[in-house]
Amino acid sequence: MHKVVTFGEVLMRLSPPDNRKFSQASNFDVIYGGGEFNVAASLSNYGIDTEFVTALPDNAIGDCALKATREFQVGNQHIIRQGNRLGIYFIEIGNSVRPSKVVYDRENSSISKIEKGDFNWEEIFKDATWFHWSGVTPALSQSAADVCLEAIKMANKMGLGISTDLNYRSKLWQYGKAPYEIMPEMLQYSNVILGDIDTTMFMLGKEKVAPEYTNENEVKGHFLNLIELLPELHTIGMTFRESVNASHQRIGGLLYKEKTLYQAKKYEIQPLVDRVGTGDAFMGGLLYGLLTFGEDRKKTINFATAACALKHSIFGDVNRVTKEDVLECISSDGSAKVNR
Amino acid sequence: MHKVVTFGEVLMRLSPPDNRKFSQASNFDVIYGGGEFNVAASLSNYGIDTEFVTALPDNAIGDCALKATREFQVGNQHIIRQGNRLGIYFIEIGNSVRPSKVVYDRENSSISKIEKGDFNWEEIFKDATWFHWSGVTPALSQSAADVCLEAIKMANKMGLGISTDLNYRSKLWQYGKAPYEIMPEMLQYSNVILGDIDTTMFMLGKEKVAPEYTNENEVKGHFLNLIELLPELHTIGMTFRESVNASHQRIGGLLYKEKTLYQAKKYEIQPLVDRVGTGDAFMGGLLYGLLTFGEDRKKTINFATAACALKHSIFGDVNRVTKEDVLECISSDGSAKVNR
Amino acid sequence: MHKVVTFGEVLMRLSPPDNRKFSQASNFDVIYGGGEFNVAASLSNYGIDTEFVTALPDNAIGDCALKATREFQVGNQHIIRQGNRLGIYFIEIGNSVRPSKVVYDRENSSISKIEKGDFNWEEIFKDATWFHWSGVTPALSQSAADVCLEAIKMANKMGLGISTDLNYRSKLWQYGKAPYEIMPEMLQYSNVILGDIDTTMFMLGKEKVAPEYTNENEVKGHFLNLIELLPELHTIGMTFRESVNASHQRIGGLLYKEKTLYQAKKYEIQPLVDRVGTGDAFMGGLLYGLLTFGEDRKKTINFATAACALKHSIFGDVNRVTKEDVLECISSDGSAKVNR
Amino acid sequence: MHKVVTFGEVLMRLSPPDNRKFSQASNFDVIYGGGEFNVAASLSNYGIDTEFVTALPDNAIGDCALKATREFQVGNQHIIRQGNRLGIYFIEIGNSVRPSKVVYDRENSSISKIEKGDFNWEEIFKDATWFHWSGVTPALSQSAADVCLEAIKMANKMGLGISTDLNYRSKLWQYGKAPYEIMPEMLQYSNVILGDIDTTMFMLGKEKVAPEYTNENEVKGHFLNLIELLPELHTIGMTFRESVNASHQRIGGLLYKEKTLYQAKKYEIQPLVDRVGTGDAFMGGLLYGLLTFGEDRKKTINFATAACALKHSIFGDVNRVTKEDVLECISSDGSAKVNR
Amino acid sequence: MHKVVTFGEVLMRLSPPDNRKFSQASNFDVIYGGGEFNVAASLSNYGIDTEFVTALPDNAIGDCALKATREFQVGNQHIIRQGNRLGIYFIEIGNSVRPSKVVYDRENSSISKIEKGDFNWEEIFKDATWFHWSGVTPALSQSAADVCLEAIKMANKMGLGISTDLNYRSKLWQYGKAPYEIMPEMLQYSNVILGDIDTTMFMLGKEKVAPEYTNENEVKGHFLNLIELLPELHTIGMTFRESVNASHQRIGGLLYKEKTLYQAKKYEIQPLVDRVGTGDAFMGGLLYGLLTFGEDRKKTINFATAACALKHSIFGDVNRVTKEDVLECISSDGSAKVNR
Amino acid sequence: MHKVVTFGEVLMRLSPPDNRKFSQASNFDVIYGGGEFNVAASLSNYGIDTEFVTALPDNAIGDCALKATREFQVGNQHIIRQGNRLGIYFIEIGNSVRPSKVVYDRENSSISKIEKGDFNWEEIFKDATWFHWSGVTPALSQSAADVCLEAIKMANKMGLGISTDLNYRSKLWQYGKAPYEIMPEMLQYSNVILGDIDTTMFMLGKEKVAPEYTNENEVKGHFLNLIELLPELHTIGMTFRESVNASHQRIGGLLYKEKTLYQAKKYEIQPLVDRVGTGDAFMGGLLYGLLTFGEDRKKTINFATAACALKHSIFGDVNRVTKEDVLECISSDGSAKVNR
Repeated sequence: MHKVVTFGEVLMRLSPPDNRKFSQASNFDVIYGGGEFNVAASLSNYGIDTEFVTALPDNAIGDCALKATREFQVGNQHIIRQGNRLGIYFIEIGNSVRPSKVVYDRENSSISKIEKGDFNWEEIFKDATWFHWSGVTPALSQSAADVCLEAIKMANKMGLGISTDLNYRSKLWQYGKAPYEIMPEMLQYSNVILGDIDTTMFMLGKEKVAPEYTNENEVKGHFLNLIELLPELHTIGMTFRESVNASHQRIGGLLYKEKTLYQAKKYEIQPLVDRVGTGDAFMGGLLYGLLTFGEDRKKTINFATAACALKHSIFGDVNRVTKEDVLECISSDGSAKVNR
Repeated sequence: MHKVVTFGEVLMRLSPPDNRKFSQASNFDVIYGGGEFNVAASLSNYGIDTEFVTALPDNAIGDCALKATREFQVGNQHIIRQGNRLGIYFIEIGNSVRPSKVVYDRENSSISKIEKGDFNWEEIFKDATWFHWSGVTPALSQSAADVCLEAIKMANKMGLGISTDLNYRSKLWQYGKAPYEIMPEMLQYSNVILGDIDTTMFMLGKEKVAPEYTNENEVKGHFLNLIELLPELHTIGMTFRESVNASHQRIGGLLYKEKTLYQAKKYEIQPLVDRVGTGDAFMGGLLYGLLTFGEDRKKTINFATAACALKHSIFGDVNRVTKEDVLECISSDGSAKVNR
Repeated sequence: MHKVVTFGEVLMRLSPPDNRKFSQASNFDVIYGGGEFNVAASLSNYGIDTEFVTALPDNAIGDCALKATREFQVGNQHIIRQGNRLGIYFIEIGNSVRPSKVVYDRENSSISKIEKGDFNWEEIFKDATWFHWSGVTPALSQSAADVCLEAIKMANKMGLGISTDLNYRSKLWQYGKAPYEIMPEMLQYSNVILGDIDTTMFMLGKEKVAPEYTNENEVKGHFLNLIELLPELHTIGMTFRESVNASHQRIGGLLYKEKTLYQAKKYEIQPLVDRVGTGDAFMGGLLYGLLTFGEDRKKTINFATAACALKHSIFGDVNRVTKEDVLECISSDGSAKVNR
Repeated sequence: MHKVVTFGEVLMRLSPPDNRKFSQASNFDVIYGGGEFNVAASLSNYGIDTEFVTALPDNAIGDCALKATREFQVGNQHIIRQGNRLGIYFIEIGNSVRPSKVVYDRENSSISKIEKGDFNWEEIFKDATWFHWSGVTPALSQSAADVCLEAIKMANKMGLGISTDLNYRSKLWQYGKAPYEIMPEMLQYSNVILGDIDTTMFMLGKEKVAPEYTNENEVKGHFLNLIELLPELHTIGMTFRESVNASHQRIGGLLYKEKTLYQAKKYEIQPLVDRVGTGDAFMGGLLYGLLTFGEDRKKTINFATAACALKHSIFGDVNRVTKEDVLECISSDGSAKVNR
Repeated sequence: MHKVVTFGEVLMRLSPPDNRKFSQASNFDVIYGGGEFNVAASLSNYGIDTEFVTALPDNAIGDCALKATREFQVGNQHIIRQGNRLGIYFIEIGNSVRPSKVVYDRENSSISKIEKGDFNWEEIFKDATWFHWSGVTPALSQSAADVCLEAIKMANKMGLGISTDLNYRSKLWQYGKAPYEIMPEMLQYSNVILGDIDTTMFMLGKEKVAPEYTNENEVKGHFLNLIELLPELHTIGMTFRESVNASHQRIGGLLYKEKTLYQAKKYEIQPLVDRVGTGDAFMGGLLYGLLTFGEDRKKTINFATAACALKHSIFGDVNRVTKEDVLECISSDGSAKVNR
Repeated sequence: MHKVVTFGEVLMRLSPPDNRKFSQASNFDVIYGGGEFNVAASLSNYGIDTEFVTALPDNAIGDCALKATREFQVGNQHIIRQGNRLGIYFIEIGNSVRPSKVVYDRENSSISKIEKGDFNWEEIFKDATWFHWSGVTPALSQSAADVCLEAIKMANKMGLGISTDLNYRSKLWQYGKAPYEIMPEMLQYSNVILGDIDTTMFMLGKEKVAPEYTNENEVKGHFLNLIELLPELHTIGMTFRESVNASHQRIGGLLYKEKTLYQAKKYEIQPLVDRVGTGDAFMGGLLYGLLTFGEDRKKTINFATAACALKHSIFGDVNRVTKEDVLECISSDGSAKVNR
């Protein structure tokens, strides 16, 4: 049996309901989520044992975030309560030709203030088999990056598998370091990476290669190159997203392992209820496949991609679907018929 | 002037608002509806005199269901108040690649407990010209099937036209009988049936024929075969539904009478506000056409199909459109321009 | 620096929320808007100084309409408070094959009762450079038409540019005069007109010409003809709208000036949040371009058309977008990607 | 068996939800009601056969008002569809020290434009035993007053009992006549009046007497005086209202008949959900008692007063209570215990 | 450290929002709760380890009820998934003189169909120190009563303390047995009972004594009498409730132990947000006090009563307060000042 | 004509709707307000010219706060856009025995980061006659305190009247200074202070005196003492608040000037819609009275107190009442009758 530990930030997300703009909102929908938490919640929905590690302020708002972990049956035994605030972001959800807009208010959050030694990683990883982190945490502050590296090293030492969602956010990384100064050391220990080729190159401080994704040989060459740059890396996953407009997208997925490329069917998504967390849904599906489908990598990439597609239809950050829901989506090609 | 009696169940429908999943709902929208009631409400909207017959519990929830009959100007003079509960179903409304989900909680409803003699059918049919029933009622319980047959025989004896929506629901039929043990006798009296070829075959206990609907001659052959199996049957209607996904469907319709096949235009439905009751909307339009458009069968199938298409745009079980709305939809090919 | 004065009606708009029909509504969303006000609000959003002139009843409902001017930073120093009521209209918002429906209740509004002398136009136009009016105001009552002409003449005399949205509404013009009896004199002073060719012909009392808009030479011929009919006219703008259905439309735009035709890209709009005010959004964008983009008429028509497209995604009458939003829509071709 | 006809206006009522002020409302709750309709709905709830007569515009908004009659099982067979608009009023619901505010927008409503001969009163009153009207209708316009008198005379001629709620509204009576010029002739035919002593005096064009209601003899003297002024009058009812503040009121009731004064218990109302229609609830209870409780006048005034008290707890204009609810309120003295 | 097991039903509760009546509701608020679950949730809020035992249907609605246990951090490891449905009840929340109304639809629920042997009580009670059950479970069905007795005996055998909330519901007990035929044997094992004197007498099949609660000696006599009737009983708690009206209640509490009577301050509750679960809040507070405050019985009854008072201010079945909230309520006498 | 400048913070306030607790909220009502802004909005509602000075982040959330100034017709010409975030606070609104709870998240707001020289006070005060500030601003940061003193000195130099709401918040003052180290110098310039005696003493670093407010002579003595401590001070106002519970409060007010004490009637407030901003409503009313009622100090304190009482009935921070509303409240003693 697997037990997956994920580590990162959980934020309060505030969004005007009913397609309204910020200037029209007299109320905001409130959701508590964050990339690494969303991955844990996905895995928990599929029946995997999970533990989410973060720092939350010790006030009523921190309690609300903590409650979200219980709601999704995600372990919370190692969450620490310290610091002053939960990070917040505001999102105005777009439609058709109008894009969504994000305003971050996440500086000085509890998680950005953590320091080495705040978490007992040895204890945290005791029964665990896998550790997942993302590129958001080292983007928050030097000390958060330090703690993340501390966790990675302990996970590696204790023999856990390690996965990373690169998750580059240009509005973060405000503390004076660029990704290439921080990420390469951290990625040395990753077995699985989620990210497209050029984001990975960028994080490693390499030149972008502007891959032609329709050229399979070229793509395989780039992936092989990446695999060779990172000693522990054996698997790379990525999503294809075609943005017709804010309400209409096409989603495909791709998995590279042992010099082979596996591609999933593309799903047509229209309308789009909530784009946030779709990458995390892919990551959750990918990890679930890697951990439980054995060598059936086609099934894994199909599962990850269908999970990602389904997330677009669900309000909030978390992919509230079961394993059966995802399999049915695959087998019905997303035609979504009702059974009565 | 026509007066149509319909007989069947009215249920409480509970659904999370705003695309939410059951697990996200802190409130449910509540609607009172049911196939045969929805047909009566459609006919009433078009100006036909109707009477809906059912059994409702004698409590405040039964009162709410009764109020729905008044709201839609459907006759309720022969509804009996007995039994313990109104049937309930929960529906989680899907979108794009996510299918809707239905959870039934309709066992032991008042209507499932009715027995022969509970209704005075002779009185009920006194001024009526038409009787409509569906395959849902005999699927509820043996005694409900008995009462339905009792009604059918009296309607037949008193010279009413009879129509039946086959409406097969695999989650019903839990009382130990299969459709083919119950339905064939009941269908002996039907003049009009709504159902595709294989559903009809199945209900009659025949082998499925997997018709190729694009082959007109083949289809006509199958319909002729069905007509010959049932002595009173002269007209069959059916809808074509192409489910692109949960938010995007294509709807067509077909009418068979006197060896001729009449087809309506296909409508593109996107988005889809509410799929429930779209078959009933078709049935209501079909009956309206048959009763009032005389031999203009092309107009009848156009009307039924446009009524069905329009229903997809309306929240709730009932097709809240007038005759004028349907005719405008036909004449504008569904382009839905505003008149200011 | 420009200062634009617009003159016309502001109405209370009441609409059932969540796709509901009138008969399902237990509450109405309320919005205060009107064509000429919406144009002023658009211009204000782009940074232009504006003044909106109207008559409002001196009660709490009139106060609400007045508050809307402040909300959008539109000048209100010359609004008069008199008369008995704010005009109202009810709109049931359609979707897919179901059209929206409008019920007007705007008779006897304060603005319809205004009389010559009620406004001090010389004072109003003192610092202004442009005056905008539409065909709605003269359609309300003879006295409103008289006041409108009074304003036009003063604006002309004081050297302001004048623009007119023809905005023909067949449900108005109930006071005994046809457009051709009123509009020709008023249009003598217009420099810019928004309207398609046949609406303009109709308003001028000319025969319709049923132009073939795909034939550029024919279209240019008709526009030239119109320009020659009106002494001050030099620019004509119009929108192309293709109504696939109530939720799916295609929007293009066209500008004619100095014998040249400028066309904008067509935008695909799906879903459609709110169609009301999309023409005003075009007008607002057109005026902004004409006033600030100089001779770059291609940029002007692109701006007007993208502004119009964006408005479809925004609830309410007013186009709540900035200049930057519109320019981003143009440069991204409406693909609406998020920046995080 | 009784059948009661009521005649008057039904209005659209628009109110900000959740204690909000007009200036804070982005939506309004919508209710269709009116004094005489509310009385009919009350009687219908108690099981009395009713018919409500009015004029409604023949549009979708008129349809909504018509639907309200069905919802409350009130007869609508003699409603005429003519004129241009439904009257509207806006109400901002106060609380504690803040009073509710009403803005009327009811001029030029369909009912205000009715004329003698529009209704076939002989047909309307054919099976009826009672006619109820109020002082609102003659306050709307001269022609509405004329029609009301026409109805009164026919009701009197055909032997119906007649009741009148004086219902003085100072914001009405704008058509050039004062109540004393219109009401005395109409009241000649009333058997039952609802109104306090000074309102009655005022409507009859008499001097106010400023009665001391705690002095029973004085009050009886005034009532006797009123009885003697109107030939058909035998019963007077009135409510006592003590307004502690907008959320806290005390309600008592009083009935005078055959020189005897009957008083009901006072109810303490806090909070107050909706004050509108509480007088109509009293009137409905009073009529119900007079028609069905025979000489038990104490029971009648208790019923009317408890019905009025209960209405304060119910949102909307109509008193959604049954006879059993009212009797339970009386027997429990309003302590409102739950039965589980 | 204590661990408390509670056993009973969890229901879906459906209630119209905003003071509306059933007939006005177009949506229902949905809550999952039940007496014994509510007690567990209260204890969990105070930091006690809890385990809730029930049977839930294995469908999406059962999942929602299960999610509620996680939300309140109540143990759910021994919940079984079987049977067909979750019990439902509808509640219309009253105000001022209008009482709340309850409609039960809980027959044939999963819990009512449980049978002896369905639960492994020895395993369930392994680490537990206390068992709590209520009079609702034996009121559901004979087999539910049998299972409850099975649990009680095992708890007794394994040395757990046992508490019982008598919780008499006259609308239950429909399976042919009266309380006095079932409850006496079960109550033999109770150490703590929550119930007033006459309810206890009734459940034991004794004559009611109509105690005068203001007479302390008389009350103590009755309690002593009860204590002597049940061999294991040592503590009795009860609430005093004075129902001024549906929105205004006064709440006091009383504890009897070792021939001594302890009384708490009375709290004035106005308004009353939600009365459901206030008894369970008292029970939760009582158990918490008994388990953690040692011999400080005055503190215990103060805690139970303040917890009960606070619950009236909280929407839903569960008392969402912490230990600190309750203590602050006691120390501030319910004056509810804000700390900023 | 007066023009009042106020200076301070505007915050985003987020509160669960409908009496819910934080842990129950799936959405928050959003309001933009702050003490000094609320005072300006009150004055603007009464017809006084106002200007509000603050710092807002230059993002979409800052735009929303800016929009609030326009909504209330408060001048915003000197607001600067700088810094990273708008301060936020969360408030859970209590009822009956449950207190409201506040969680601040206002650190590092734009206003807390302002520095001397950021505002051009000479320009700001050019046409102004009065300057109002509160004890919140110097509690935010040393630099905010510095800017506040800078403003005060300039106002004093330019001859403006100066008022101060002491507004002590124990959760602020976190930057290492106590009030007595900062406030005495600032208060040297105040002409009017709002605050009770002991808060004033505390802010001045004096011993508390625990005044017996029912002893008029004692109170006058303390006030005289305060007047003598501050050279420019001539007027002190304070509110009396009796907190029966969270939903029921009594509000009185008191004004001291020239050795005379003026007291207003006490208002009974029940229910209490929103307590936030009631002190600001008092301050707004007090300033309005001082500026416009001349020597009629009784009228002034009555106005301030009634304004404060009314605010309790209004959702949000701002007192949305007119001068007429306040005067009517005074003349009706808060009985809140409706005029129809």
